[in-house]
Amino acid sequence: METQEALLYTIIFILLSLIFLFWRFLWLSYIAVTSTPQPTSHSLTAESDETEFMAYMVRKSKSVNKALDEAVPLCEPVLKIREAMRYTLLSDGKRVRPMLCLATCQLVGGHESTAMPSACAVEMIHASSIILDDLPCMDDDSLRRGRPTNHKVYGEDVAVLASVALMGLALKHTAASTDVPPERALRAVQVMAQAVGTEGLVGGQAEDLAGEGMSFAENDEAGLEHLEFIHIHKTASLLEAAAVVGAIMGGGSDEEIEKLRKYARCIGLMFQVVDDVLDVTKSSEELGKTAGKDVMAGKLTYPKVLGVEKSREYAERLNREAREHLRGFDSDKAAPLLFLADYIVNRQN
Amino acid sequence: METQEALLYTIIFILLSLIFLFWRFLWLSYIAVTSTPQPTSHSLTAESDETEFMAYMVRKSKSVNKALDEAVPLCEPVLKIREAMRYTLLSDGKRVRPMLCLATCQLVGGHESTAMPSACAVEMIHASSIILDDLPCMDDDSLRRGRPTNHKVYGEDVAVLASVALMGLALKHTAASTDVPPERALRAVQVMAQAVGTEGLVGGQAEDLAGEGMSFAENDEAGLEHLEFIHIHKTASLLEAAAVVGAIMGGGSDEEIEKLRKYARCIGLMFQVVDDVLDVTKSSEELGKTAGKDVMAGKLTYPKVLGVEKSREYAERLNREAREHLRGFDSDKAAPLLFLADYIVNRQN
Repeated sequence: METQEALLYTIIFILLSLIFLFWRFLWLSYIAVTSTPQPTSHSLTAESDETEFMAYMVRKSKSVNKALDEAVPLCEPVLKIREAMRYTLLSDGKRVRPMLCLATCQLVGGHESTAMPSACAVEMIHASSIILDDLPCMDDDSLRRGRPTNHKVYGEDVAVLASVALMGLALKHTAASTDVPPERALRAVQVMAQAVGTEGLVGGQAEDLAGEGMSFAENDEAGLEHLEFIHIHKTASLLEAAAVVGAIMGGGSDEEIEKLRKYARCIGLMFQVVDDVLDVTKSSEELGKTAGKDVMAGKLTYPKVLGVEKSREYAERLNREAREHLRGFDSDKAAPLLFLADYIVNRQN
Repeated sequence: METQEALLYTIIFILLSLIFLFWRFLWLSYIAVTSTPQPTSHSLTAESDETEFMAYMVRKSKSVNKALDEAVPLCEPVLKIREAMRYTLLSDGKRVRPMLCLATCQLVGGHESTAMPSACAVEMIHASSIILDDLPCMDDDSLRRGRPTNHKVYGEDVAVLASVALMGLALKHTAASTDVPPERALRAVQVMAQAVGTEGLVGGQAEDLAGEGMSFAENDEAGLEHLEFIHIHKTASLLEAAAVVGAIMGGGSDEEIEKLRKYARCIGLMFQVVDDVLDVTKSSEELGKTAGKDVMAGKLTYPKVLGVEKSREYAERLNREAREHLRGFDSDKAAPLLFLADYIVNRQN
């Protein structure tokens, strides 16, 4: 090989290397920028109090509501379906699931806006499942939070279609998260789709329906197992998905994601235990809804299986466990999740 | 800077460059291997005849049925939901949608196995929509292809849950396609989720339900527009998704994907036109189902809006258009799609 030729190859090689290095640099910078947490004013810290947490919840639910409103614009064609989708999606609610999703994203170092599409998606799946649960062939409810249920307003056919459309939109929305590497969005879609099916909401609702009319004695192991299966699938699975998807979008490690999943399962179950206890210990006035409804419907509840006192102890244990899973995280960043756990266990209605 | 230091930096730079080049080489080789078409025995070619095409269809539907069977194993928990999912998913069917998905993947140079998860997903969405369409609150059908509909066998509650579970599984399955770059799987999820919602199946069914009781005169422009909207959304959108997702998974260019989408829309509409014509021109014996059903139900059909002769001409025009969109592709590789178009337009029942 002549010297000139060798020189030419060397130059080409160096040029190519430079191009690759530059490209790599651009990509890494992009990732760094998108996952750099921007300072948020009015952030919660470990020193905040309950009032500040409530204000935090209100701020988060406002930004989530805005994003949800934009995600389902009221326009033709199929205006009626969109109306029905919005009726349940934008109804009053604490937006606990989206808040959880945004908080875990920030906790692992991501920016809140990265998780906003997934946070909305989780709320869409929740709304979709509510519409189906209320159908005459399921729980046959005509009122939810004081308003007529979706099928009572729009008819069963429109309600079912709105529910399916919300499900599809949720997964499309998650997949369309453009400011994260595609691997993350893809993993989020899988987690969310799994939370819908037989391993999630569908599984829980199916077991719930199958259990109607079953009778269990107090302290019955089989009863507790049945109850836990229902609530792990019906309530906890979507909260788990919210926490996991937020952490995935924020670029959390597998270890961090797993800790947050376990935290979410604890608060999911805790929510249900507290709900069951309130149903038998509070009056309708205190609850703002019919008390003793579960007992009247002959439903299997924690107080029925464990007794009221042991149910309370169980809720406290779940709260301790939930907090345990947050160890090792920055305590300021974990503040929203710590407050959320306390909020759920202490609620009085 | 000393000479030794400069030398050290140069060596580090060259080493880093080499590592990047090697990594890039590995990645490109991986892409090349996964998208290299493997020769298939008994492939269709432009010279094949109809019998060979029918044999091809049988082979494809066998491999799809095997994959579907594996995708929804019959096991605890929620055995009943899985039974209901399998009842509709594995019932007799020509598997036109999965076949289309596998064929477009191969057409653009991909390997069939790459598109198999998406092909199954498209069939799951189809099965899911069939279950919902048959519900009492929708078309209220108790028989489909001579068998009781899903809710007649398993009850409405289980049918609805099975439908939702199939929808979730479809998107999880697509997202879990591991042998393609994540960008492709993510794009496929978006296309499929879109085909479910207001821009797809839900949109079509909503317009169909809204149109019940509407009356249109022959050759009425508004009637034709309404009819096309329904069929573009109810029938064509999922066929389009099948074709597009197959081409995405196979690594097709945007231009190729768009051509195949247009092809699929043509055959989707054509299927419906032919179906409507057969309903008014054939006897129940010839069709193997009740003839004149649409007329009796007062449904808006192509013969009603265009007349029988013009409907036939329209189907022929759609077939020509469909074939037009396949120009520029290798004629041997495009053979399955060309045969499929002829098969749809010439079917007699």
